Amino acid sequence: MNYFGKAFMVSTFGESHGAGIGCVIDGVPAGLEIDKAYIQRELDRRKPGQNAYSTPRKESDEVEILSGVFEGFSTGTPIALFIKNGNQKSKDYDNVKDLFRPSHGDFTYFKKYGIRDYRGGGRSSARESAARVAAAAVAKKMLEEFKIHVGSGVSGIGELKGKNLDFSYAKNSQIYALDKDCETSWKNLIEKAKKEHNSIGAEVSIKVSGLMAGLGEPLYDKLDGLLGSYLLGINGVKAVEVGEGVRASTLMGDQNNDQMDENGFLTNHSGGVLGGISTGQDLHVRVHFKPTPSIFLPQQTQDINSKPITCKLKGRHDPCIGVRGSVVAEAMVNLLIGDLLLLHVSSTMDNLKKVYGV
Amino acid sequence: MNYFGKAFMVSTFGESHGAGIGCVIDGVPAGLEIDKAYIQRELDRRKPGQNAYSTPRKESDEVEILSGVFEGFSTGTPIALFIKNGNQKSKDYDNVKDLFRPSHGDFTYFKKYGIRDYRGGGRSSARESAARVAAAAVAKKMLEEFKIHVGSGVSGIGELKGKNLDFSYAKNSQIYALDKDCETSWKNLIEKAKKEHNSIGAEVSIKVSGLMAGLGEPLYDKLDGLLGSYLLGINGVKAVEVGEGVRASTLMGDQNNDQMDENGFLTNHSGGVLGGISTGQDLHVRVHFKPTPSIFLPQQTQDINSKPITCKLKGRHDPCIGVRGSVVAEAMVNLLIGDLLLLHVSSTMDNLKKVYGV
Amino acid sequence: MNYFGKAFMVSTFGESHGAGIGCVIDGVPAGLEIDKAYIQRELDRRKPGQNAYSTPRKESDEVEILSGVFEGFSTGTPIALFIKNGNQKSKDYDNVKDLFRPSHGDFTYFKKYGIRDYRGGGRSSARESAARVAAAAVAKKMLEEFKIHVGSGVSGIGELKGKNLDFSYAKNSQIYALDKDCETSWKNLIEKAKKEHNSIGAEVSIKVSGLMAGLGEPLYDKLDGLLGSYLLGINGVKAVEVGEGVRASTLMGDQNNDQMDENGFLTNHSGGVLGGISTGQDLHVRVHFKPTPSIFLPQQTQDINSKPITCKLKGRHDPCIGVRGSVVAEAMVNLLIGDLLLLHVSSTMDNLKKVYGV
Amino acid sequence: MNYFGKAFMVSTFGESHGAGIGCVIDGVPAGLEIDKAYIQRELDRRKPGQNAYSTPRKESDEVEILSGVFEGFSTGTPIALFIKNGNQKSKDYDNVKDLFRPSHGDFTYFKKYGIRDYRGGGRSSARESAARVAAAAVAKKMLEEFKIHVGSGVSGIGELKGKNLDFSYAKNSQIYALDKDCETSWKNLIEKAKKEHNSIGAEVSIKVSGLMAGLGEPLYDKLDGLLGSYLLGINGVKAVEVGEGVRASTLMGDQNNDQMDENGFLTNHSGGVLGGISTGQDLHVRVHFKPTPSIFLPQQTQDINSKPITCKLKGRHDPCIGVRGSVVAEAMVNLLIGDLLLLHVSSTMDNLKKVYGV
Repeated sequence: MNYFGKAFMVSTFGESHGAGIGCVIDGVPAGLEIDKAYIQRELDRRKPGQNAYSTPRKESDEVEILSGVFEGFSTGTPIALFIKNGNQKSKDYDNVKDLFRPSHGDFTYFKKYGIRDYRGGGRSSARESAARVAAAAVAKKMLEEFKIHVGSGVSGIGELKGKNLDFSYAKNSQIYALDKDCETSWKNLIEKAKKEHNSIGAEVSIKVSGLMAGLGEPLYDKLDGLLGSYLLGINGVKAVEVGEGVRASTLMGDQNNDQMDENGFLTNHSGGVLGGISTGQDLHVRVHFKPTPSIFLPQQTQDINSKPITCKLKGRHDPCIGVRGSVVAEAMVNLLIGDLLLLHVSSTMDNLKKVYGV
Repeated sequence: MNYFGKAFMVSTFGESHGAGIGCVIDGVPAGLEIDKAYIQRELDRRKPGQNAYSTPRKESDEVEILSGVFEGFSTGTPIALFIKNGNQKSKDYDNVKDLFRPSHGDFTYFKKYGIRDYRGGGRSSARESAARVAAAAVAKKMLEEFKIHVGSGVSGIGELKGKNLDFSYAKNSQIYALDKDCETSWKNLIEKAKKEHNSIGAEVSIKVSGLMAGLGEPLYDKLDGLLGSYLLGINGVKAVEVGEGVRASTLMGDQNNDQMDENGFLTNHSGGVLGGISTGQDLHVRVHFKPTPSIFLPQQTQDINSKPITCKLKGRHDPCIGVRGSVVAEAMVNLLIGDLLLLHVSSTMDNLKKVYGV
Repeated sequence: MNYFGKAFMVSTFGESHGAGIGCVIDGVPAGLEIDKAYIQRELDRRKPGQNAYSTPRKESDEVEILSGVFEGFSTGTPIALFIKNGNQKSKDYDNVKDLFRPSHGDFTYFKKYGIRDYRGGGRSSARESAARVAAAAVAKKMLEEFKIHVGSGVSGIGELKGKNLDFSYAKNSQIYALDKDCETSWKNLIEKAKKEHNSIGAEVSIKVSGLMAGLGEPLYDKLDGLLGSYLLGINGVKAVEVGEGVRASTLMGDQNNDQMDENGFLTNHSGGVLGGISTGQDLHVRVHFKPTPSIFLPQQTQDINSKPITCKLKGRHDPCIGVRGSVVAEAMVNLLIGDLLLLHVSSTMDNLKKVYGV
Repeated sequence: MNYFGKAFMVSTFGESHGAGIGCVIDGVPAGLEIDKAYIQRELDRRKPGQNAYSTPRKESDEVEILSGVFEGFSTGTPIALFIKNGNQKSKDYDNVKDLFRPSHGDFTYFKKYGIRDYRGGGRSSARESAARVAAAAVAKKMLEEFKIHVGSGVSGIGELKGKNLDFSYAKNSQIYALDKDCETSWKNLIEKAKKEHNSIGAEVSIKVSGLMAGLGEPLYDKLDGLLGSYLLGINGVKAVEVGEGVRASTLMGDQNNDQMDENGFLTNHSGGVLGGISTGQDLHVRVHFKPTPSIFLPQQTQDINSKPITCKLKGRHDPCIGVRGSVVAEAMVNLLIGDLLLLHVSSTMDNLKKVYGV
């Protein structure tokens, strides 16, 4: 059941080497300005082949709006976006057709479905995330109307963690670095991994500012619970932290509690969420990406008949999926906040009365 | 929209100091043996007041089966379970009626709904988790038929992390300790926090054994994505890790990849999930609980009119929510695996043909 | 998957002869006054045993509010309602334990689940509808705040159809008759059926007044589409008509089209819905109930081993399920309109801006 | 929230005069043969412009498979289908841009969203149904594997009802007539309506054969309840009847009950469904289409500023939407049965054990 969101609903379709990838967004309120160029700019941030730190594989990733927009505005009907595939080198995958690349979805898709599109990972390709980024551009545009902004970037490469995170700096960094002082070292780590035909993990941080208090639907569509599913559901993400995150489990109550005075919270250990609902502070989330599983060192694996075989991958891959992954993580948070913003409006009789003018 | 699961669906209801708490489980396959005593045993593992390491508040937590079971077996219709509240000291909450306890859901519920049941946290009380544990007992019983077992326990208290985790040991430990060698130190840390009117965080580990390959619905109901929402949605959980988790972001590709030979995987860095689908290995998850926000030291806060006030909590609370929280985390994983087990059956034409005898 | 509604969500549980029946309502906006006596009054309208035209079986049907209401108002959390069973004569069903009563759910439940609670039809009992009526009372209370009113009643018994329907008259009629002039004849038809150990069908009409234009979510949660599922899903309903209904298929375009002038629509052939969305006119729906399948004449049937057997029912049943069924149909429409009212609020950017004060 | 189905899920997108229309089908089991030509054949049955009895507007309606199929088989991932628009005469709609065509969705879309794509009805165009028919072709292919067949056709035009319905005859009839003896008269009625610039209503009948007992999820995803939403949600449908339908409300219990002997049911008044679950008999459904609202006689209406205006439609329209509507109704039933077929597989422990080999 391939959709997410309950009010701002998105489903995606498409594979790495098929006709293309796309999404259907349902529940976009009517009257939102929708600009193809705006969506394209977001897609371009995710696009590979832009510099030495991502795959040299070029994808033009040009978005088409198939429906739901009329004279520049959303009509309230489903918005379908489509991105044609191009520059496909299916031949690159001939040698992996009958084997399971280590730590990819090859083995599990085969076990689940008994059939798989082996070209570029098929449906499990990171390419699918382009459809999410496109959908998220619409959510982002909607959030802008409410002055909500989601920032993202890289806060760690390998074991080197950033200290002073600057979300405005990341925008212009080739590797979306959040810490200017670490940027060069991080670049070096990525280049080194690449030269060694290896890959490297990354930590990504996300900050949402301008969020009103009250978003999140307890108990099962909690803001933090949904951050879990939206972010752990991204290819390669192995951990999600909110606020103090892992560190919270090492603290004492008086260290972790956020006291208040008449002006509001004095600290933000919670990361902007209490009881599954936004506090109105900035939302702080960290996401941990594993190193790219596609490495170019010989590896042992099985073929589809369970026979052992040595796997030597070819092709073009990001040495660090976390870099472009940060754009995807930001996209997912935009989608989530968009959904919760819509869901919240029916939470109180007061809200209903405002809408219906009673 | 208060339910979770798409095939094994659970919704809960009830507050800390109302009539009671309960759940409705829909989608339980007909013909499963359902035993009240079995459910009660699971509830008893979560029950407070059993020893010095949890709240002295006694809750009898006796479950009633209201529907869906006939002559000891599930009938395929909704199973409702109910646990009456008792031993309520609403008076304990008179002094917090008009203020926001630091790091509780008080502030956010008030902001969202404009009204809140302040007694014991109302709906945001950890007591709600009893309903989840009851529902999960039914899922657990179903998983037993397929030899799937979910184990859980405490793998860290404060900064002291366990090393050798033994899931069978935890069952008989008063604090569900997974590491025998740490147990005494962990107990001491909890007692110290309690004496100081403070609280302490905890790390919980979960292992699922016996899982078949193929569970998980890409892309949006991925096994790992859903672990995120099921577990980050538990009160007090601030981080979820799968497999290597946070550490994955510090590794190189060749360190993190799981190679295979003819007998299967050689390592399990992935934690049992690739591409959002179970690999057939053990599933490894870690969950980080913050320290109990209810501490008995004076704290600054606001009242509901935004005036500053000093908060002095009374009442009875767990010094470390992670201990009993481990039972809740285990419950959530049972529910999730139950859901994915049902969802998977319609994944292939072969499965359908087996069911319909074609 | 036993719930309905996407914003005002209801699930029910319980069987005819178990502990009781109940419902969980999620999504009720916070701040709605919820009064047990109000709910009870609605339940009493459905209650059997009130006069000669329904089953003499008495059910006290006393509702308990288990959660979600605090100091007389909804808190935004799930509202659970429960109605204990009583006056059960399970013995009445000993003789049908091993056979399939003609035109009941006995055969199909057995085929589907391989197990069934045969006492009083178990889950397929019309008694389950009490839970719907209770849930609908909450929806009705909400609709009152917006001056929306759902009226219902009997517009035909057997072949005698009503002509001048008066929704205020029905309230005080023992058989909820909409046409005063037909009432006596209708009563006679029901009494005759009863005396002959037989039963009789009924047509029920529903009118919603005060509805604003704009409710309904095209294309798959259309107002008329959902009327179909909410009403054809009631036990014994075999047809649903909107506006001209069946007659529409016999008309010419110029007979069926609703023209407009500056004051709005000149006619209402559509029954208040166009393109799946409410027009702001009254909503007109007709529902056709089959005769009660429980009749007291000898009938041929199978037992659970497929052997032929003569079925002689005992017990107490309504000679005409459509009478009390009209209350259930009204309830379902209240629930549906409640759901669409909530769903609509996020349809436009303008609505969102009103709520968030932008 | 624009999708239907819970296991075999379909969402559609697209407008009459945009880029095209399409659908995303999620939940199609892996391993189903998917043939573009097969889908095209189904689409061609719905295609306009084929003879004198439908609109002369030609639509090529050529389907593209965008995803989810690999080497001729479904992979278990979302299947997206797309049909480009062509032969659009947007100019035809210039004169209706600012007014509400009587009995169309124009008025209600405008009231709901404050914006509408007026070209050809935009999203409310019957053209959207092509996407449903395409999706349904996939469901139909799946049902074939289980020998389930859905037949459809016209059983009444205006007041002339068919008597002897022959579902195999309809396939080759230009108006999908189910009664050979009525066909000529029906054609004449349609031609007459067309010549008079008017339109005419139609009754459509559907029969499902080969259905196993046990499909349908009580209480809220009942087979008959869902027939209601799937069919009343089709443009122009004003009534849905199951089995005896409307007539059931005029019968006595002994006339309507289906008795059984050792070989099964002796009659089929129920139309193949009891308690919301299929009986294993043929499923009988009737659907009533209103006359096409687009007629070419002068009509009074409002413009978007509520001023009275006379509407004179131009363009090309079906004189009887029920004819091609029968193909859409058949499609919806294919989709519904497909969904219930998948949902049922997790209904019993026995089914699960068959799948998992326990």
